[in-house]
Amino acid sequence: MRFVSDNTAAVHPKIMAAIAAANRDPAPAYGGDDLTKRLTRRFSELFEKDVTVLPVATGTAANSISLAALCPSYGAVFCHREAHVEVDECGAPEFYTGGAKLVALDGAAGKLDAKTLDAAISNAGIGVQHHVQPAAISLTNATEAGTLYRPDETAAIGAVAKKYRLGLHVDGARFANAVAALNCRPADLTWKAGVDLLSFGATKGGAMAAEAAIAFTPEAAQSLIYRRKRGGHLFSKMRFLSAQLEAYLTDGLWLEAARHANRLAQRLKTGLERLPGVKLMFPVEANEVFVDLPAPMLDRLYAAGWPKRPWPGYPASMIRLVASGVDSEADVDAFLARLTG
Amino acid sequence: MRFVSDNTAAVHPKIMAAIAAANRDPAPAYGGDDLTKRLTRRFSELFEKDVTVLPVATGTAANSISLAALCPSYGAVFCHREAHVEVDECGAPEFYTGGAKLVALDGAAGKLDAKTLDAAISNAGIGVQHHVQPAAISLTNATEAGTLYRPDETAAIGAVAKKYRLGLHVDGARFANAVAALNCRPADLTWKAGVDLLSFGATKGGAMAAEAAIAFTPEAAQSLIYRRKRGGHLFSKMRFLSAQLEAYLTDGLWLEAARHANRLAQRLKTGLERLPGVKLMFPVEANEVFVDLPAPMLDRLYAAGWPKRPWPGYPASMIRLVASGVDSEADVDAFLARLTG
Amino acid sequence: MRFVSDNTAAVHPKIMAAIAAANRDPAPAYGGDDLTKRLTRRFSELFEKDVTVLPVATGTAANSISLAALCPSYGAVFCHREAHVEVDECGAPEFYTGGAKLVALDGAAGKLDAKTLDAAISNAGIGVQHHVQPAAISLTNATEAGTLYRPDETAAIGAVAKKYRLGLHVDGARFANAVAALNCRPADLTWKAGVDLLSFGATKGGAMAAEAAIAFTPEAAQSLIYRRKRGGHLFSKMRFLSAQLEAYLTDGLWLEAARHANRLAQRLKTGLERLPGVKLMFPVEANEVFVDLPAPMLDRLYAAGWPKRPWPGYPASMIRLVASGVDSEADVDAFLARLTG
Amino acid sequence: MRFVSDNTAAVHPKIMAAIAAANRDPAPAYGGDDLTKRLTRRFSELFEKDVTVLPVATGTAANSISLAALCPSYGAVFCHREAHVEVDECGAPEFYTGGAKLVALDGAAGKLDAKTLDAAISNAGIGVQHHVQPAAISLTNATEAGTLYRPDETAAIGAVAKKYRLGLHVDGARFANAVAALNCRPADLTWKAGVDLLSFGATKGGAMAAEAAIAFTPEAAQSLIYRRKRGGHLFSKMRFLSAQLEAYLTDGLWLEAARHANRLAQRLKTGLERLPGVKLMFPVEANEVFVDLPAPMLDRLYAAGWPKRPWPGYPASMIRLVASGVDSEADVDAFLARLTG
Repeated sequence: MRFVSDNTAAVHPKIMAAIAAANRDPAPAYGGDDLTKRLTRRFSELFEKDVTVLPVATGTAANSISLAALCPSYGAVFCHREAHVEVDECGAPEFYTGGAKLVALDGAAGKLDAKTLDAAISNAGIGVQHHVQPAAISLTNATEAGTLYRPDETAAIGAVAKKYRLGLHVDGARFANAVAALNCRPADLTWKAGVDLLSFGATKGGAMAAEAAIAFTPEAAQSLIYRRKRGGHLFSKMRFLSAQLEAYLTDGLWLEAARHANRLAQRLKTGLERLPGVKLMFPVEANEVFVDLPAPMLDRLYAAGWPKRPWPGYPASMIRLVASGVDSEADVDAFLARLTG
Repeated sequence: MRFVSDNTAAVHPKIMAAIAAANRDPAPAYGGDDLTKRLTRRFSELFEKDVTVLPVATGTAANSISLAALCPSYGAVFCHREAHVEVDECGAPEFYTGGAKLVALDGAAGKLDAKTLDAAISNAGIGVQHHVQPAAISLTNATEAGTLYRPDETAAIGAVAKKYRLGLHVDGARFANAVAALNCRPADLTWKAGVDLLSFGATKGGAMAAEAAIAFTPEAAQSLIYRRKRGGHLFSKMRFLSAQLEAYLTDGLWLEAARHANRLAQRLKTGLERLPGVKLMFPVEANEVFVDLPAPMLDRLYAAGWPKRPWPGYPASMIRLVASGVDSEADVDAFLARLTG
Repeated sequence: MRFVSDNTAAVHPKIMAAIAAANRDPAPAYGGDDLTKRLTRRFSELFEKDVTVLPVATGTAANSISLAALCPSYGAVFCHREAHVEVDECGAPEFYTGGAKLVALDGAAGKLDAKTLDAAISNAGIGVQHHVQPAAISLTNATEAGTLYRPDETAAIGAVAKKYRLGLHVDGARFANAVAALNCRPADLTWKAGVDLLSFGATKGGAMAAEAAIAFTPEAAQSLIYRRKRGGHLFSKMRFLSAQLEAYLTDGLWLEAARHANRLAQRLKTGLERLPGVKLMFPVEANEVFVDLPAPMLDRLYAAGWPKRPWPGYPASMIRLVASGVDSEADVDAFLARLTG
Repeated sequence: MRFVSDNTAAVHPKIMAAIAAANRDPAPAYGGDDLTKRLTRRFSELFEKDVTVLPVATGTAANSISLAALCPSYGAVFCHREAHVEVDECGAPEFYTGGAKLVALDGAAGKLDAKTLDAAISNAGIGVQHHVQPAAISLTNATEAGTLYRPDETAAIGAVAKKYRLGLHVDGARFANAVAALNCRPADLTWKAGVDLLSFGATKGGAMAAEAAIAFTPEAAQSLIYRRKRGGHLFSKMRFLSAQLEAYLTDGLWLEAARHANRLAQRLKTGLERLPGVKLMFPVEANEVFVDLPAPMLDRLYAAGWPKRPWPGYPASMIRLVASGVDSEADVDAFLARLTG
């Protein structure tokens, strides 16, 4: 069934083709291949800065090695109460950091704001031996609620990070959707706003299983290769990860797919708004729509196989729709039609 | 260049085809798909026992979650001094276990023997609070030296594990080569010999990046799904891992490829034995050949781009050749011809 | 200055005498001495059950090895939002468990209730691989707010622990004050109510630095000696820890000192209630008094050297008073007199 | 029985007196007291350099927080095969570092030499992602074999540490015996020789339970207070630890006790050399004597209650004698007399 998750979507044909193309001859293992080497230049061009690029296969891996690079075992990572790192990774950040603490903060529509962060950090006992020490902030952009941090909002949080000498990480599982929707440069949402490390997502955007940890400074990059290997995330045949990422970047596929998904989300939103009794929970800014449905509509969805999944803290009648680059406008219309029976 | 490593080899065409075939429609994420569900039955048939199967993308991941399932943080894992888990995983087992200690033992031709193990364990201070507590044994079959544990040898080690109530893990990155060479049943090298957990390798056998942690008892299986997720190894689009494993098992591809690789290793061995000044270091029992070469031959290889990689504890003139399922007899002959100039 | 903390109080003379007495002759190290051996019997009598006793020097150590014994690295410990383990141990529980997550819950007057716990646990995703797995509950009795869990309240929480097969730990830094105030048997607040492990505090009750991790079942006890040693908490000259604990238990000193401290807290409370503008924050049930003071009184205290320490979430004008076994009624009266100038 | 271990010895009367004296009045908790504050000056004078001093109660604690400060989770610590940190701490260094690897090296009479270290480090794969990264060296002085590193030997190892940018730690459980025997300045065996962190032992020298982690640079000191608290090693009534350390340093008690113990070891040695069939295993340079005894002598000892403790890798007939500051010459003579029946 469509719109359940961008994780259920198919792999983009261009990415499948790139994987097949990478399989011609033997190639050096563990990232010594040409494809992987090219990625550094590609990403450096994209971000208008020399960056370090570590391909991995999952977002949890990219997030975890990034947070571990920024936060010592006795540190604290400040994040939103609904952040993937806090809620959905079975404690991976705690594991990779060696037992750091995630401090989960409230924020409207899935977003942290600089003021809340500043207050939380200043009250956290910096320099006091009884308390875990503030070490990093982790944002998700696009957020878990399908909303966005604009460049200025990111920069305001970057300023807080700088004020307290904390690292700043962005979980960019849907970074493409954010860049596409904001029509900004990738640099504006990252290093120019004070971001040290980005989990650059491709899987949800159409890859098979490919993400990249992107470090914007040599300091942030320093320990990553060891943390990746130690976590079991160094692929022997890494060219197949790199091929996905390269294809994703080539000819703007990543933004094209994201724009398409964002447009479908708007189409879903518009269609839903017209239906009686339907309530949109958050602004629809990227490719996700959170919507509270009347019981009859919900029943029709469940009857059609929609998976029941509770969102703690939200009404049981709320569902999340996620549009992907391989869905179509016809899929949207079919979905809306199904709702009304 | 061929024979440098089975990690540099291409993906088997049948496995590539299976990956492409898995990409038709959306499918449930995180292993809820049909392909993944089928794997349990497939592996249970293969091992003649109900097993738990967790697909992951790297051998380090399979090894690490397995050892963590068997060994508490205050435990010790007994392994060979040259084991991959000890030497080549940047401390992944220490990381996943929460700081357990690997006790590295000597053994001829890459093999541990039951007697050495028994002595080491009995001297390790079981029950004494000052010492890490023996918790697991990890074998590699085929070994790092290209040799094999036969069923009876495995069972002898399984008896030691049982005697001291330790878990027994097999790193089977080249398990296919072992089964193919020994012409035995997979059960004989695993649970019938007392093995609790197997890292079943497919990547070196022709997959793109696919391994499976196989648990032979419910106790050994219990914590694996959490350790996998927490390590960042739960793929959202897991069907693409599962498709590789399924294709690898289908119609005996895994054994066919392994037999082929083993045969090529024998051909390499025979050819090398005929060359003056060449010394084979270990019995050639699987798909690897360790050979000490005279300087002129070595120089020709290096000139042709063979990577210089020291093997600590061995002569600098020793190299390792690894045959894979996608190499051919002509490749062997070309390699041998290149040696003699 | 008196009443700042029971951590600033002097060591009880009887405990000092026991330390001196333990110093006559050489004695076996690491707990092999007679004093330590006697402790097991003493505590088993006290709790009317065969218990395992591990002397350590700090409450953080006792809490940490206990929680690590109950909670795997991928687990969750449910505790009160203001629990010492959550707030004041620089992440020690996360460290000792290998990165488990503390789930901090709200509760009036420092207390968790069974209903809140049941709801939180049932919503935590038991068996779902994306989420840390509920593994333990940790109560503090007497609580951080100076209130108490009665036997029936503890048992209700014990029933929740049993329902979900979680371990139950009690941080008993002020366990003596709880037992003394409730006038119950130690068993009623522990194993009879479903408690698996108790951090039995003596330091705040008059010891120099002595606590005991008490395990009520062999399963809970099993890993403790290794976790203690591995944490660096196995004293070579352990007899000096054991001597403190023995003296603390002898002739009911522990309850006598606690009763005295509790009485002084009531005297403080009564005196404070008579002062205009003073507001007691929580019921005074043990040896702590949380009180919101008018500015002039606060100023007098600060002028006299009272340390400024913010209690996050509470008015800046709130202070905590802690009575100890070595304070006197005259001390109370002097303190009250100082408040009014 | 005397000479079994300096861990079984009594507390020095002057140290007991200091503990009693510290108990007069309430004092600020957690190291805010005057006694603790004075320690920094005392140790800075002793080492002729501004140092950071963290009192803890066990050598394992001092070693562990020190190694964790020097070595990341993906790092390696090079130490002697018989080092306490490798053999006798139930994996505490692995625990505190988050799973680093201890690389145990051979060396005559319990000592590492600079050449062996240099070779091992240079072969360890610095910068190679597959391998744990060399991060620290840990020496024990006096060694586990009762031998000593002289200032020039320490400096040679310090030069290796500097060459590879590794941290250098000294486990000084018997540091006093080393300084006393070498008749050098404490600085010569530490920071002047390139040492970053010292575990300064007092317990074996006559304290009840007191050690200090001494950092010679601000970088090495930076994380220690958090690691101490997180490990559960921050004493609330820290003045009692500090009182022991202060007394130990006052009027040269630490060196006086060590000189006395060293002299008794020489007396033991001289006496043993005269006995037929007795073989001294190592040079007697500090307060320990390792001696291989004929069966009849051994039997007499065991009959008198000497504990049987095997030393792996050594003859079963070897025992270790340790002299302490509270033993006497008469004790030595009595021991020797007992041997010959």
